[in-house]
Amino acid sequence: MTTYLEISMTLDGFVTGPNVSDQEPMGAEGERIHDWMFAGKTDEQVQAMQDEKFAGIGAVIMGHTTFELGEGPWGDDPAFHAPCFVVSHEAVETIAKQGGTSYTFVTDGIERALEVAKAAAGDKDVQVMGGANLAQQFLRAGLLDELRIHLVHMLLGAGTRLFEELGPKPVDLELVESSQEEGVTHLRLRPTS
Amino acid sequence: MTTYLEISMTLDGFVTGPNVSDQEPMGAEGERIHDWMFAGKTDEQVQAMQDEKFAGIGAVIMGHTTFELGEGPWGDDPAFHAPCFVVSHEAVETIAKQGGTSYTFVTDGIERALEVAKAAAGDKDVQVMGGANLAQQFLRAGLLDELRIHLVHMLLGAGTRLFEELGPKPVDLELVESSQEEGVTHLRLRPTS
Repeated sequence: MTTYLEISMTLDGFVTGPNVSDQEPMGAEGERIHDWMFAGKTDEQVQAMQDEKFAGIGAVIMGHTTFELGEGPWGDDPAFHAPCFVVSHEAVETIAKQGGTSYTFVTDGIERALEVAKAAAGDKDVQVMGGANLAQQFLRAGLLDELRIHLVHMLLGAGTRLFEELGPKPVDLELVESSQEEGVTHLRLRPTS
Repeated sequence: MTTYLEISMTLDGFVTGPNVSDQEPMGAEGERIHDWMFAGKTDEQVQAMQDEKFAGIGAVIMGHTTFELGEGPWGDDPAFHAPCFVVSHEAVETIAKQGGTSYTFVTDGIERALEVAKAAAGDKDVQVMGGANLAQQFLRAGLLDELRIHLVHMLLGAGTRLFEELGPKPVDLELVESSQEEGVTHLRLRPTS
């Protein structure tokens, strides 16, 4: 089982556009960051891709803002089909959705969130979903086995950066796998230092 | 003939480390950004790679800081073998080196530098070399036909970012070519919007 960060990032480093809000949860023009998931694919193909991805995932960790912005759009039967752990300052009761998805709030920080996520995931992987702030906490703490970056072939020019405030401590990455699709380069990288 | 930016950038977006100086022209730990050029290669292979690259280049454009930090290390017979145009606020006499390299200072901004570089390059390509500030000027002005990014498989954590202060104006990029080498993903991308 692997703990990995999986996220789509533009070539200029952004994971959302500027001015994130309930109306624009990905920020201005930020929806375009995920266009590659749908480009040239039928609904069935998108669904199959999602199903394949989440089949390997036993638990998901996300930040509170990601949860707040996503819960509505993800609907009553979210694609996760797995327990999700929301790193939060606020204690909230667990929310159960259809199809095996639940949202459990963890108020003791990322190490604790990872501990409960791993326990829930069993032999499966734990996906750290973001947003950027949560990803940075995991990166600084060295808790990720792998980065799965969907490098989107565009410059967004403004927004929220994934890699920020990590501090001057180089981390070497080993490329595990890479592939291309229309509009995106997929990179799987493992920290080796 | 193509006007392209060619530069090595870490996955987290840095083209130099922090604290650039004469002693450390690539900044702290910044030399590691160019390690891929030498890793696992003989001196002859490195030389052949350089020669092949510069054979297609008829002129180079660089910023003043890049020139100041580079002139010494590049030596009396620089690898360029082509006229280099240094975008500068300071009028300085042209400096001639061995092997066809010269440094000519252009004080009228990037459009003028591109004009004289294209005239000097004839049928060959113009390389915009950097630094980051010069690259950003070219990106904002939409003067690049192509980006050749050597995406280095490391997080540097701090330093000078390539893509900064571009403003909230998305630019779509079309992938022309990509390849992998130890420690680096090479991407050639063309702005399409």
